[in-house]
Amino acid sequence: MILASRSPQRRAILEQLGFEFEVVVPDVEELEDGDPREMVVENALRKMRAVPGDFVLGVDTTVVVDGVSYGKPADEAEARATLELLSGRTHEVWSGIALDGRTAAACTEVTFRRLGEGLIEWYLDSGEWRDRAGGYAIQGRGAALVERIDGDYWNVVGLPVPTLLDLLA
Amino acid sequence: MILASRSPQRRAILEQLGFEFEVVVPDVEELEDGDPREMVVENALRKMRAVPGDFVLGVDTTVVVDGVSYGKPADEAEARATLELLSGRTHEVWSGIALDGRTAAACTEVTFRRLGEGLIEWYLDSGEWRDRAGGYAIQGRGAALVERIDGDYWNVVGLPVPTLLDLLA
Repeated sequence: MILASRSPQRRAILEQLGFEFEVVVPDVEELEDGDPREMVVENALRKMRAVPGDFVLGVDTTVVVDGVSYGKPADEAEARATLELLSGRTHEVWSGIALDGRTAAACTEVTFRRLGEGLIEWYLDSGEWRDRAGGYAIQGRGAALVERIDGDYWNVVGLPVPTLLDLLA
Repeated sequence: MILASRSPQRRAILEQLGFEFEVVVPDVEELEDGDPREMVVENALRKMRAVPGDFVLGVDTTVVVDGVSYGKPADEAEARATLELLSGRTHEVWSGIALDGRTAAACTEVTFRRLGEGLIEWYLDSGEWRDRAGGYAIQGRGAALVERIDGDYWNVVGLPVPTLLDLLA
């Protein structure tokens, strides 16, 4: 299998499961809005198609609040604004996967704790918001931001494991 | 803070959050059945009290199916029986925490995929079932067993982070 992604989290999940795979970083233009399911599946397909090979896995993940998608914040101010928006409420995390031409999508609801100014500062200072859809990493310090999740945890980290296993089965 | 636990998972979670702490392994006799909430809180208190110091954190976690608690499997046969029991259904994971005399508990619902014989063999071969309540580690290869969770993910790993942060607040 070839993982068409630059994400270290996705690599770590596949390693944790004992998969053997290579990594090739795809160079694609991604959709940034639209229906979340259609968007992440289309982006996953674009990544898959951008990498030559027989068994290529493309993945795309986005954070959705009030129907609006939030990708990776451009800077700390944007990360702060996103965390303030997510504070004390539930948002959706959508991932699309594409493997060998077949596609699937997963959605997990994530409920944030009420984030005080101090906690947001502490989190932004860690720099963990960089390169993360929605500006947080649930598997890192971001654990302190999250009250509960409903659905697949690994989807929030960046790769929906049960969805991938179903696609492989 | 002193973490009164031998669990490497609990240590890793506190490190991930940036806590400074020591570890002291408590030597206590634990309850093994009874009402889940009362049991894990009582066990957490026993661990806390077994370690001298001012700011000692005791934690206990159990897996509950049909009102019956499942701790660490004694051997591979018991791990197999537990995984077969959990296959294709929802169970509860309960953790109790005790810190500085105050206590709290958390419950997360975990839904397993339908586990075929091959997947159970693959999982047992990894040895990951050892020393894990319910015979699986959601943060390891056990990710392949779980379809969804409803509640706090870290509670399933072994330390309910939002519950701890609420107790500290």
